[in-house]
Amino acid sequence: MSVFASLFASLFEPKRVALIGASSDERRTTSRPQRFLRKHGFTGEILPVNPGRAEIFGVKAWKAIDELPGEIDHAYILLNGKDAVAALAACGRRGVKVASILAGGFADAGAAGASLQDELVEIVKQTGIRLVGPNSIGTVSTEPPVALTANAAFAVDKLRTGNWGLVSQSGSLIGALLSRADARGIGFSRLISVGNEVDLKVGEIADLLVDDPKTKAILLFMETLRDGERLARAARRAHAAGKPMVAYKLGRSDIGQELAKSHTGAIAGSDATFDAFCRRHGIARVSMFESLVDVPALLVDRPPSRGKRVAVATTTGGGAAMVVDNMAMAGLDIVGPPQELVDWLKPLGIACEGKLVDLTLAGAKPEIVSGTIERLLADDANDAAIFVVGSSAQFNPELAIEPLLRFAGSKKPFAVALTPAAEKSLALLTAAGVPAFRHPESCAEAMALCLLGPTPQPEPKLAEPSAAVRAALAAGRAGFDERTATALFAALGVPVAKSMAVPDARRVAAAVAEVGAPVALKILSADIAHKTEAGGVALGLPDGQSAAVAARDMEKRVTAQAPAAKLDGFLVQKMERGLAEVILGFRRDPLVGPTITVGLGGVLAEIYKDAATRLAPVDEAEALQMINEVKGLATIRGYRNLPKGDVAALARAISAFSALAHPAFAAVSEAEINPLLVQNDGVVAVDGLVVTR
Amino acid sequence: MSVFASLFASLFEPKRVALIGASSDERRTTSRPQRFLRKHGFTGEILPVNPGRAEIFGVKAWKAIDELPGEIDHAYILLNGKDAVAALAACGRRGVKVASILAGGFADAGAAGASLQDELVEIVKQTGIRLVGPNSIGTVSTEPPVALTANAAFAVDKLRTGNWGLVSQSGSLIGALLSRADARGIGFSRLISVGNEVDLKVGEIADLLVDDPKTKAILLFMETLRDGERLARAARRAHAAGKPMVAYKLGRSDIGQELAKSHTGAIAGSDATFDAFCRRHGIARVSMFESLVDVPALLVDRPPSRGKRVAVATTTGGGAAMVVDNMAMAGLDIVGPPQELVDWLKPLGIACEGKLVDLTLAGAKPEIVSGTIERLLADDANDAAIFVVGSSAQFNPELAIEPLLRFAGSKKPFAVALTPAAEKSLALLTAAGVPAFRHPESCAEAMALCLLGPTPQPEPKLAEPSAAVRAALAAGRAGFDERTATALFAALGVPVAKSMAVPDARRVAAAVAEVGAPVALKILSADIAHKTEAGGVALGLPDGQSAAVAARDMEKRVTAQAPAAKLDGFLVQKMERGLAEVILGFRRDPLVGPTITVGLGGVLAEIYKDAATRLAPVDEAEALQMINEVKGLATIRGYRNLPKGDVAALARAISAFSALAHPAFAAVSEAEINPLLVQNDGVVAVDGLVVTR
Repeated sequence: MSVFASLFASLFEPKRVALIGASSDERRTTSRPQRFLRKHGFTGEILPVNPGRAEIFGVKAWKAIDELPGEIDHAYILLNGKDAVAALAACGRRGVKVASILAGGFADAGAAGASLQDELVEIVKQTGIRLVGPNSIGTVSTEPPVALTANAAFAVDKLRTGNWGLVSQSGSLIGALLSRADARGIGFSRLISVGNEVDLKVGEIADLLVDDPKTKAILLFMETLRDGERLARAARRAHAAGKPMVAYKLGRSDIGQELAKSHTGAIAGSDATFDAFCRRHGIARVSMFESLVDVPALLVDRPPSRGKRVAVATTTGGGAAMVVDNMAMAGLDIVGPPQELVDWLKPLGIACEGKLVDLTLAGAKPEIVSGTIERLLADDANDAAIFVVGSSAQFNPELAIEPLLRFAGSKKPFAVALTPAAEKSLALLTAAGVPAFRHPESCAEAMALCLLGPTPQPEPKLAEPSAAVRAALAAGRAGFDERTATALFAALGVPVAKSMAVPDARRVAAAVAEVGAPVALKILSADIAHKTEAGGVALGLPDGQSAAVAARDMEKRVTAQAPAAKLDGFLVQKMERGLAEVILGFRRDPLVGPTITVGLGGVLAEIYKDAATRLAPVDEAEALQMINEVKGLATIRGYRNLPKGDVAALARAISAFSALAHPAFAAVSEAEINPLLVQNDGVVAVDGLVVTR
Repeated sequence: MSVFASLFASLFEPKRVALIGASSDERRTTSRPQRFLRKHGFTGEILPVNPGRAEIFGVKAWKAIDELPGEIDHAYILLNGKDAVAALAACGRRGVKVASILAGGFADAGAAGASLQDELVEIVKQTGIRLVGPNSIGTVSTEPPVALTANAAFAVDKLRTGNWGLVSQSGSLIGALLSRADARGIGFSRLISVGNEVDLKVGEIADLLVDDPKTKAILLFMETLRDGERLARAARRAHAAGKPMVAYKLGRSDIGQELAKSHTGAIAGSDATFDAFCRRHGIARVSMFESLVDVPALLVDRPPSRGKRVAVATTTGGGAAMVVDNMAMAGLDIVGPPQELVDWLKPLGIACEGKLVDLTLAGAKPEIVSGTIERLLADDANDAAIFVVGSSAQFNPELAIEPLLRFAGSKKPFAVALTPAAEKSLALLTAAGVPAFRHPESCAEAMALCLLGPTPQPEPKLAEPSAAVRAALAAGRAGFDERTATALFAALGVPVAKSMAVPDARRVAAAVAEVGAPVALKILSADIAHKTEAGGVALGLPDGQSAAVAARDMEKRVTAQAPAAKLDGFLVQKMERGLAEVILGFRRDPLVGPTITVGLGGVLAEIYKDAATRLAPVDEAEALQMINEVKGLATIRGYRNLPKGDVAALARAISAFSALAHPAFAAVSEAEINPLLVQNDGVVAVDGLVVTR
């Protein structure tokens, strides 16, 4: 058995399970794993360990881990604190393949817990045991049944089998999702609570599920991101395998981020960067909690689509209007029926006016419903179809749903939305493999993700930095100032405003002749942090003479204000004008790595928070997408009669700047060009900074 | 009995009901009203009318309306087209108090239907009969039971009684809401499908429900608005009676508006103006369909609150984090527990760190849960409290829910959110009167509406237009130009840039001396629509001499371009500068009446659609709220180190401009000031237009 298969089997399909600290007291949480394993039909061997008991629930109990006979696939440690650490060490020595730890109180509980968690890390490193948790409420498979969990939610009588694999950073929400899915006929293949992710993390576990034949979609409930690279790889492999990866992540608000942090002991990261991560690697992020179980059905085995035209037929005009309203708000277009369908419906007494095909008046006869959907799906003028069912779904599930079932696995995306509470219809559709929705909001979210959602983008290749770039980087080794920063940007290939540094005021006029008037003049001094406030900046100087005068005045003024400052001369920079001011930001995010942000410059853009963020690097095509996402850049994309800016040059500059993602720039934690002026025939960077660590 | 009580009784609690066109064929829709009436226990008398039958379902049938004996409270006309019209006429002659018409095919079906609908209008006018529909699928009361409906959704075995009254412009969504509410233990008092609203409209029906002791909240499903004034009155009376009015309205997207229009044959109106309508009159508008049944519980009998601080306790950290995340995105603040609670929990082994009170570790003992909520509700540092329940709600409904029930009717808003699917717990909480939610999204929406939602605003009094205003209005009788438009604004009290009209170029210099340099110069001619394009505008003229030269040049240029144009001279206007440019728009909306919109001027604000809309008139306090809503006006409210603009003067100008809502200006359909410059000590209007009809 390969290492991979062995890990997967020990984790999800163990044959021999040890329960360290098992209890025979049904009121205690530590009694649950044994009870739940049996209740849901675990056919392997359970080995409870409890020094005070000879047997637990009729099964022989062992005094200590070291006494356990034979190979143990998976040990669930139900002890707390130091006892849990000792148990993990014993499991490691004993050659147990995978252990899970139930208890919290580690990195999730401040400094003392964190040092205890460090001990776990050390044991994993020393012994090679693989660890789930701590703070893991368990790992469950439905087929073969392995309910290795202390989660009260598994007190249900019957565990529904299914094809969704759930990986959750919240233990308690596994129960919520299990019950919500069950209520509408959806089951899971695997459910795992990853806890603090000391060893096994979301990414590696998701990666295991990509190769799991029982799992057709991978669902993530996330509070943070601890192994982005591995998750990225898993997402790409999942996409290639036709298995959608769907994520709900906490922390869209500031307080939500704060909570996620305090709840997990981890950094939450910014929401925009997580979005960028999902977009790059093809993870469908949902905004409604229940969408996590609703949405995957529409994405399974679905080749990426770029069309956004949806056709809608219905037996409830009002219900369909709600779905349409939500879809339009999600960015989809609604298209009417093909003429062939209009002609087919006419003799049946159904007039198609407008974009909705409303079959209400036909009494929704099954052959009319299926004939309508067939013709919609055959129409090249749409990219997907939706059927919205009214009361009949509630009262005549078989009758209302039967004509829809044959469209399971349709080539084109097809979904059914139900307006009433109609659990039986939902279950029938779900069982047949027809994506079905009970909320107009999640139906629209699913269709938007299906048609417009992310597909993995190729990671742009990063060219090795040139000698010039390396030299510019080396020049900033001791810290970058404005000159060295813009020099680095220029070396990367971003056009920068022509400038020249001169050692004293006498050479300013010559510098103006060199860079071309009008110019901006700035004093150079490492000792002056705020040049403008110190009177060390003059703008719009029309010629060499006035610039020279300004330089002498500036010298006097600055010397008077800061007598101790060492002056290094002046920077003479050509004054540039642009049709728009753009800010480019580069940042190494603690969770997702290098990111690049493009925003409109100026106060208004800051107020409107109008910016696009991506993982860096980006190629020019992706840079163009970013430009299109920044609403305020409409002004240079061709708006009314405003002059167009050189969008292609802007895209080139963004892509060039994003090369800071290369490991050669590892010391650069942040960089910013502000402003980058977009002109009608190019772009030019005027100012910027580089922060190193 | 008063006319009101008589109408209410005939509509919702009729004793003798005629079914015109009743059928004994169970497969036919027209058989349903009789079957549903009986099924749900109608105790009055049913009088079927059908010329071809002696009896229907065991009840004597009558040949014609004219043969019906005694008084008829409510006749449900189940015939189509002309037959329905004839039946209504017969009912009217016969003295039937209220009739409903099931059939569509009237204004909802184009021109032919519209003329048929006109006949209905005429009959109502002539006979005084009150009409529901046409296109009404029925009117239902649950207690006493009167299921006078052809809606298949009422095939349910048992109709749950309850306190929500539902008025719907969509017939089919009544069924959807009925089933969704029932699934979570909520019942309705009345449900009515208003159809095309020829006579009885949403507003009047809602107004009747305000006085209905069985109805504690009024729910509206809307596609359009046909009697805004009446609905406004109903909303205000409902608010005064402690009965929340909650609305879901289609048409948030353009295509949604189009559908609403084609579906109802009515104008949809803009979404922003409907929001303005709701805000003015205190209607809580929900964005999630299911919120329509979820949200009212939290708003019933709830005095308006302006605090927005919510305290959260939970037995599921992840679930509570979701609720918190959604609440924060809805604009609410989350506040931590009072010290007293922290101290109380400590000896119980529960450490409160951060803002969430997480009781998971306590095993959620009932006395700890109720003790916690009690202390949160007693804390002055919050305005509301939420308890988020995990798996226990699913498995131990009684145990998990019992400690929450005593907080029904708490003085402060208190809500429960359930993370698993836990219908029994929902029903228990609902039955006890504790607002409970099954979606974090609708829980957040409800709490935001409860704390931040609209309360009816007093309608500002409109002063009678002064003689000066009347004169300015009269001056535009034949159509307004720039001069007469700004003169009207000035008369209303909006400061306008100083200007002077002169008949020829020779008098321009003198005018400059009068208004003050620098000036803008514009040619005056009713024959030139686009002055700038015709070369008829010059800006920034520094003195009288240059202005005079510019005037002569302009004359030549314009004459060359448009030799036939009659020139009326020049407008000399003082050039003004501002810290921000604002656009003020006034419009008579076809649905809600006069509205006023404040937006930031310039291309960017247009791109960001950054504007606030209200019903006009507004007083200065409401104008200030509008200013605060326009994000881009942050620049003049005090942003970073930008100079502050005269926000009070802007509010005065908005309020003065909104006086166009006075009936004296009925001829003014639209007016715009663009730009209105905000300065540091005042505002000044530079240009504008007035459109009359």
